[in-house]
Order: sequence, then C-alpha cells, then structure tokens
Amino acid sequence: MKIEAVDFFYLSMPVVTDAGDGSQDALLVRVAAGGEVGWGECEASPLTSIAAFVCPMSHGACKPVRDVVLGKALNGPDDIAALAAAVEMECMDLLQAAHTFSGIEMALWDLLGRKRGVPVYQLLGYAKAYPKLPYASQLFGDTPAETLAGCRAARSRGFRAVKCGWGPFGRGSLKDDRDHLQAAREGLGPDGKLLIDAGQIFREDVDAAAERIALLEEVDAGWFEEPFLGGAYAAYGALSQRRGKVKVAGGEASHNFHMAQHLIDYGKVSFIQIDCGRIGGLAPAKRVADYAVAHGVTYVNHTFTSHLALCASLQPYAGLKDHVICEYPFAPKPVAWDMSETHLEPDENGEVRVPDAPGLGVAMSRSGIGKYLVDVEIRAKGMLLYKTPSMAE
Amino acid sequence: MKIEAVDFFYLSMPVVTDAGDGSQDALLVRVAAGGEVGWGECEASPLTSIAAFVCPMSHGACKPVRDVVLGKALNGPDDIAALAAAVEMECMDLLQAAHTFSGIEMALWDLLGRKRGVPVYQLLGYAKAYPKLPYASQLFGDTPAETLAGCRAARSRGFRAVKCGWGPFGRGSLKDDRDHLQAAREGLGPDGKLLIDAGQIFREDVDAAAERIALLEEVDAGWFEEPFLGGAYAAYGALSQRRGKVKVAGGEASHNFHMAQHLIDYGKVSFIQIDCGRIGGLAPAKRVADYAVAHGVTYVNHTFTSHLALCASLQPYAGLKDHVICEYPFAPKPVAWDMSETHLEPDENGEVRVPDAPGLGVAMSRSGIGKYLVDVEIRAKGMLLYKTPSMAE
Repeated sequence: MKIEAVDFFYLSMPVVTDAGDGSQDALLVRVAAGGEVGWGECEASPLTSIAAFVCPMSHGACKPVRDVVLGKALNGPDDIAALAAAVEMECMDLLQAAHTFSGIEMALWDLLGRKRGVPVYQLLGYAKAYPKLPYASQLFGDTPAETLAGCRAARSRGFRAVKCGWGPFGRGSLKDDRDHLQAAREGLGPDGKLLIDAGQIFREDVDAAAERIALLEEVDAGWFEEPFLGGAYAAYGALSQRRGKVKVAGGEASHNFHMAQHLIDYGKVSFIQIDCGRIGGLAPAKRVADYAVAHGVTYVNHTFTSHLALCASLQPYAGLKDHVICEYPFAPKPVAWDMSETHLEPDENGEVRVPDAPGLGVAMSRSGIGKYLVDVEIRAKGMLLYKTPSMAE
Repeated sequence: MKIEAVDFFYLSMPVVTDAGDGSQDALLVRVAAGGEVGWGECEASPLTSIAAFVCPMSHGACKPVRDVVLGKALNGPDDIAALAAAVEMECMDLLQAAHTFSGIEMALWDLLGRKRGVPVYQLLGYAKAYPKLPYASQLFGDTPAETLAGCRAARSRGFRAVKCGWGPFGRGSLKDDRDHLQAAREGLGPDGKLLIDAGQIFREDVDAAAERIALLEEVDAGWFEEPFLGGAYAAYGALSQRRGKVKVAGGEASHNFHMAQHLIDYGKVSFIQIDCGRIGGLAPAKRVADYAVAHGVTYVNHTFTSHLALCASLQPYAGLKDHVICEYPFAPKPVAWDMSETHLEPDENGEVRVPDAPGLGVAMSRSGIGKYLVDVEIRAKGMLLYKTPSMAE
C-alpha cells in the first residue's frame, strides 16, 4: 500500500499556563493507507511541527517532511525504516523534522498493526508484553504542603510509585529542596518508590547537583532525573562519580538514537528515558531499548501527555520483563484525556498493560478531538500550505 | 536599552531545486533596540524557524522564542548570555528554537557592536582579526568533467583552496569517486588545498567511509568532511583509528555547544566546523573556538550562504592567527549575494578579512532584500501570528 494522506490535528486547552505541564496541548497525526488509518502524537510545539511538515523546500537536504513521506510504500517494518533514513538525509538541516516525523512514524506502526491484526510490540519483535509498574508523574507543589498533598493523592489512588519534578526544586536553598523531598516521602509513605526530576535546572553545574545527593539519599529516592541540560554528557559523567547510592536518569530530550546512546556511554546514566514523540518514533526507541539491555541500563518511557502517547511509549520495551517501571501521566489536562476512548488504568496490583489489540490498541475519540481542535492556517509563496483539517475521515 | 522589535524576513529564489545548495533561500532577522538595528541570519527552513518564534506556548518549558526575547534588556554581552540561557530553559522542548535563536543572537551582537562602534570580534574578546584563507566551497559536478571545470574555475578566480562536496560522492562505485577526486585535483592544480565533503552519505558505515581513505590520500585531500550522521560520534571515533594521513572534519549540524564538544572529545575530529546560524549564534561558537584551541583542534566556519552569514561566521575565530582556513560560498545564488551591499572579496593574496567596522560590518541592501522577500502568513487560535513585515524600518 501507499501512504495516501498525513493529517495533523493541533489540540489545545483554551488557556495554556506556563506551568511545566506538557499535557496542555497536543499534536495528533493521522495517516491513511490501504483503507486503514493509524494515529500518532508529536512532542511538542504543535505549530512548529506542522510547519516542518509543510514548509517550502530550502534545498535537497532541507525538504519538508511531507515531501519525504507522502506517496511512499508502506508494506512492512522495512518501509518504515527506509522512511526514517530518508528523513535523516533529506531533512538533515531541518531541526524540527525529528519531532514531526516521530508522530508520523508512530502512526505508521499503528496502521501496520491494525492492517495485520497484531499489536505493535509484536511487529517490533517481542513475543509478549509484560505488565509495567506506573509511577504517578506530577510536578512539585509550590509549597511542601502541596507536594505532600500531591503524593498522598497518588498513594490513595493506588500508585506504588510517584515522581515529583520541576516547580521550585533546585531554584531555592538546599533547605527548601529538603523540605519538598521530605514532604514527598511523607505523602507517599515509607514503602513507595519515590523518583525526583530536576528538569535540567542545574544546567552544567555538577557541584550544585551533587549537593542534592545527600538529600535524595535521605528520602531513598529511586533516581535523580535530568539534573543537567540534555546534551551535557560530561556533567552527567562527572556526577556519576559522586552520586552515592542515588542513580541518575535522563534522555527525554533525545531526538535521535545517538543522543540516547551517548547519554548511556558518556553520561553513565542508570535509567534511559525515551519520549517516542521526539526520538523519531518507535523504531529508534526500540533500538535504544536493545542498547540499554546490552549495557545494563534500564529503559523507561517518557510520557506526560495522552494515553495514545502512553500506549505508544510502552511498545518499545513491552517485552522487557525486568524493565518494569513506567511513567504515567497522573493529572493530565482534559485535552490529553478526552482525545481517546481507550485509557490505561492501573489494575488491582497497581500495574498497567499495553493493550492486547491491533496496532497501538487505542480507539481515538472524534468528539474529544473535535472539542479541542485549534484553527491554524499557514500560507507562503502564494500557497495555502496548511489549514486545520475536518475531523471527517 | 530594551529589545523593542524582532522581525523575520524570508527570502527565496523564485525556483528552489533539490540540489544540495543551501544558498537558495534565507531567513534574515532584524533586531531593534535603543535606536539601532542589528542583522542576523538563521540556517535553515525559514518557515519553520519563523513558526518557532511565533508559535503559541505549549507549557513553561516550551515557549515561543519571541516570549523569551522581546522586551528584554540589551546592555552588554552578559545580557546576550542570559537570553541564551533563558532560551535553553524556556524553549527546552521546542527543537527548532536553537536555529531560530541563532539569527537573533547574531543580530544582538551586531546591534551591540554598532551601538559601541566596535567590531563584534572585539566584543567576543579578540584584540585583532587575522586574515583567513578562503576555500571555494562547491558541489561535485554530475560528471568528473564538471567537477574538473568547477575546480578550474575556482583556481582561475584566484582561490588557493577548494572544497568539493555532496552530489554523486559516495553514491556510486569507488571508481566513480576516484574519478571525481582525480578530476578535482587536476582542476585545482598540484599545489592547491583540496577538501572533500561527504555530506553524511555513509551514515554510520565506518567501512564504507574507510574505503575512501586511500582515494583521498592519492589526491592529498586536506580533510574528509562529515562522512557520517552529525551525531554518530562512535562512527567518527572508529574512523579516526583508520584515517591514515587524512584528517576528519565535521560539526556543522551542532545546534548547541555540547554537540561540537562531543565531536571533538568522542569523534576525534581534527577540524570542527561551526555554523553560527545553527549553534545558537556567536557566543556558543566562540566557546567552541576556545575549546578547539585547548584541544589542538582547528576551528573552521561553516557558511554556504550570504556574506552576512560569512562575516558573522568569521567573528568567533577572527583572533585565532593559526586557524587560517575559512569556508567561502563560491557560487551562491543571487538571493544570497544581493541581500547585502557589503561583500568579502579575496585580496591579492587570496585572503579575506572580517570587516574592520562596527558590529558585523555588513551593510544590508533594502532593495536586494525586497526583491526576494516571500509572502508568509501564519494564523492560529484566532490570532494573526506572523505576516511578512514591510521593509520600511
């Protein structure tokens, strides 16, 4: 079959705040081929990723993603790999292309799985999918009392693991950070798994990050996530010498396989966190999972948005029995929830499972999507390059 | 003073072909503050970089570049550094932001230099600027005869160095590549400096790249540029064990300091090539130059477009006497030439010098810009986010 259509849907909450909450908008991709459709989701900045799809060509190595994808063959996983390689070469100088293609690639797998009647994780080479232990991923509160309440809420909903991140952490004194960390542990209880996300706040300052190690050890933190800028491998590597019992996690910024590989090789992280909406989709994420296994590193999804993104993010490591933890958007905005009819709820063991259904296993909600659809129009060189498509298929 | 306005001008040839010629369009940035203006240029995909400037905010770490820059203080180099750091944090999840900010940062330096009446290289910390030896940068011909003619043309215009790249190289047989390399050497003459650019054609295939080493040695090539994908440091590192007398160059894809640092540390390149329109502007490029000096690596500009970009690209290493070679767009399209009144022509020694004038030292041409200006209109969420500005200041 041929890729007949690729449509982008920019969804947004009516009001977007400057909180570090990535669930406030979304960019959905619908691909059509051979009478079937597949869905994917790009992270982040919907308008910019749409522009990378429709922009006029600058030269032979800076083409719009559209020109590389539309009309191409889609008969199996090899065709998806060929498209990814073509995007790398033909969109070489178009930085945003990796994010744009991520959602497309995800949708191609979804479509292929639906067509063949098998879950995507099987197409990726796994015989079966193992359950994952979701951690409730949330922001630190503005005050320790809010942080405590947030962790308590997650616990009361049955989560055995919680991640607190961003917000005030690393911006004030060590005492402030300690108060938040202690509050988080108190809210979660002594036996829960507590994970801490610094949101790159220390940039390249290894000393500033290292000062927090003792505070994280006090609360038995399961990891110290993204202390530094995504590409600051030397800082990561230096911290690995001073991390005590605390393990370091990172990788969400990776927009290709190599960035994740280097964070493992040079940054010496213990957990590699991959956002399938950024790294180029599911195949490069699976390649990272293979690399992680070979290097004794644990693979974790990075997902703070929808259950489409969540179901996609689990596929690349669904078959890794020992890589059990998974990020789970705990309090997403309504746009992230309403866009799909399918949602992954933790079971009585507090575990989630990737849907045992064709493709990504997610039924999208036409009314949910329509409710948050944003009007966009892009014109250049006398042409209408993009206009928000109708939800009719 | 405050940054009062940031305007983007998308210029393009009427027809853009899929040749690997990056001079076919351009994105200019004009910044206004304190009664002065400064100019910069972004690489590449103008529409996408404009979108990254005006897009609606997705969340606190995915803001449009506009929100981070407009209205901010600009009183000295520290303010430019603060803005760059703010973009890193507040546009963290907006991949294209690095390219968008590159042109802005360049324009901020230009403006500051004009305001103070000093060349930018002095603001960057150099007491004086040394002449550079330009190499005529061009594509391989479709046939060896065309490659020969191109190199002969550069030689006859007085160039002592030539770079041939892209086109058929690495796509056919070893014999085909050898024929092109021999033709290039013949056209340039025995004493000229011949540089070869593979344009990432070998992706991660170290063997395929290594097979060309002997052919490059035969023609005494000065470097072997970008054999691999920009982030494939392991492939670069592996080739460094097998490169014989041929030195390896790379780095143009770097969209932050760390990528260049890692190509030096892990990729073991001998030449680090920086595009100021991608890496975030002049300050991170200067940081790379400092790093290169400290590690025995030679800094080279990457510039295939205008003389605004060329004059900007020389500033970060203007004061490095021993880093003499520079990329010089040999046969740019008219849009790249006409946009400025200032052009750097090689002198009787075949050398070029950064203008000894305030800022970047480039007078822009209003009529030249107007001639190639592209109409663009971007609307989203009921707002007109961008419309091509008038050329009136």
